[in-house]
Amino acid sequence: MTILHLLDLIGVGVFAVSGALAAGRKHLDLFGVVVIALVTAIGGGTIRDVLLDRHPIFWISNTAYLAVILAATALTIVWVRVREPPFAALPVADALGLALFAISGAQIAERMVLPSTVVVMMGTITGVAGGMIRDVLTNDIPLVLRKGTLYASTAIVGIAVYLMLRSAGVTPNLSSALGMLTVIVLRFTSIIWGLSLPVFKVEEAESRKQ
Amino acid sequence: MTILHLLDLIGVGVFAVSGALAAGRKHLDLFGVVVIALVTAIGGGTIRDVLLDRHPIFWISNTAYLAVILAATALTIVWVRVREPPFAALPVADALGLALFAISGAQIAERMVLPSTVVVMMGTITGVAGGMIRDVLTNDIPLVLRKGTLYASTAIVGIAVYLMLRSAGVTPNLSSALGMLTVIVLRFTSIIWGLSLPVFKVEEAESRKQ
Amino acid sequence: MTILHLLDLIGVGVFAVSGALAAGRKHLDLFGVVVIALVTAIGGGTIRDVLLDRHPIFWISNTAYLAVILAATALTIVWVRVREPPFAALPVADALGLALFAISGAQIAERMVLPSTVVVMMGTITGVAGGMIRDVLTNDIPLVLRKGTLYASTAIVGIAVYLMLRSAGVTPNLSSALGMLTVIVLRFTSIIWGLSLPVFKVEEAESRKQ
Repeated sequence: MTILHLLDLIGVGVFAVSGALAAGRKHLDLFGVVVIALVTAIGGGTIRDVLLDRHPIFWISNTAYLAVILAATALTIVWVRVREPPFAALPVADALGLALFAISGAQIAERMVLPSTVVVMMGTITGVAGGMIRDVLTNDIPLVLRKGTLYASTAIVGIAVYLMLRSAGVTPNLSSALGMLTVIVLRFTSIIWGLSLPVFKVEEAESRKQ
Repeated sequence: MTILHLLDLIGVGVFAVSGALAAGRKHLDLFGVVVIALVTAIGGGTIRDVLLDRHPIFWISNTAYLAVILAATALTIVWVRVREPPFAALPVADALGLALFAISGAQIAERMVLPSTVVVMMGTITGVAGGMIRDVLTNDIPLVLRKGTLYASTAIVGIAVYLMLRSAGVTPNLSSALGMLTVIVLRFTSIIWGLSLPVFKVEEAESRKQ
Repeated sequence: MTILHLLDLIGVGVFAVSGALAAGRKHLDLFGVVVIALVTAIGGGTIRDVLLDRHPIFWISNTAYLAVILAATALTIVWVRVREPPFAALPVADALGLALFAISGAQIAERMVLPSTVVVMMGTITGVAGGMIRDVLTNDIPLVLRKGTLYASTAIVGIAVYLMLRSAGVTPNLSSALGMLTVIVLRFTSIIWGLSLPVFKVEEAESRKQ
């Protein structure tokens, strides 16, 4: 319980840092930086809670999340003034955050006895929706939708591993750990080897274009 | 009951195809294609259910919707590899989907005994919000907001026809059928004759520009 | 009670005008103008109500809001045909709307006995989220996130003033009035003197760019 909660807070902090750095790249003002850090960190879990009608929403019932986000954002701003942005550490932290959010989001849906497809969707939404809102607000096509390294797909596979282990009778803790490990290993394999999903291209004949 | 549900599944499948094709035009990867197909197909109904506090949300309580969307997306991807994309069939299918979603969304709000303005809004949201999220995620100004053929307006008129027939004592089934027919006929009339709503232009004097 | 409700309706009308003018600048069609006016006016309060699980949502339980928005939009369209758009009056009206929404949103969260950080977030969301959705739909980076005059920050300070007065035992009405006044005064001070928050810039070394 306390370990999962601690991991969750780490995930929120990590995503806040990645959101703050993304906002800095777009030269937003300080309020913009806080907003982007907030939506990146709590966006996915908030959509999950609204869709599943879980109230009060996680960051309303426990304000430690907001405190962690504000502290992480402030630290990022101060850090960048005096040192190089932690770009090298970011993919590691982000993979950890993705793994944590995907599995914890899936567990929440699983405890509500929902079908597997919905469990996979909720875990994936928890892991990637915050980053999607961040990209929409900074006026980009969300990174996770574009060709790149495997990202959301690693969350889906990790959740599937978790669900299979659970249905095979493995304990929740071990299943969670192995599910998260799957996400992290797949994510790094994909970054190192440059793996990506195929792109779907639809070319319209010139004459058909609007 | 079963006919309305079948029509609803057809509407979901049709919108998934249109979402998948839109994602293909933007050269998204396979995960991106599935996400855009999903939000296009279930986005409007999901916002309606959240606003009306209807839980569990339609695709959580009935996973046939997700299955239809995944199948429609897979079929679209395979189809485009071997044949021309079904651009000619798409407007027909899309008009059908719009008509189905607008009237079924309005009926849901009507059964909750809400005011007519709210019923019209919920039907319109169900019909057009999925496409709007699709356009925002692929970084466009939503198509339904821009000058073009009549789209959302046909849904509004169809819902109004439905509501007037209902208040005149016509049976729900006949009112629904005539409401949907109104949407479809108006949509095709608008496509064939190039009808559109007037554009609202505000020109700022140069000196006033920020 | 009736004064607060009247002020709320004025705020909704003001934001509808600002949304309609923004849509006109993007040359949207009439449906697009109504949609942008609607989301600008009710977007923030709707997100607040969904996050706080307050149902029915304010504009569903009281359709006066929708009527005011439609009337304000129609008036804006007619006005722009015959006269200069009311650009000079807009900042005044917008500052009033922001002040009203921020304090009334905070009060709603306060009455639910939520922590201060959540109260500040709900007030800020109520005040600025509608404008953010407006900007996303018209394909801009939201204005409130970019460097400019102080906007969201004035709402945050106003809410903080309100909360401090309340905890010091000042009556709700007087605290509200002083909170709103703080927002309005700060907003105009910032416009007149060109005050803005510092920008957070993260520059990636060329070699690190993706």
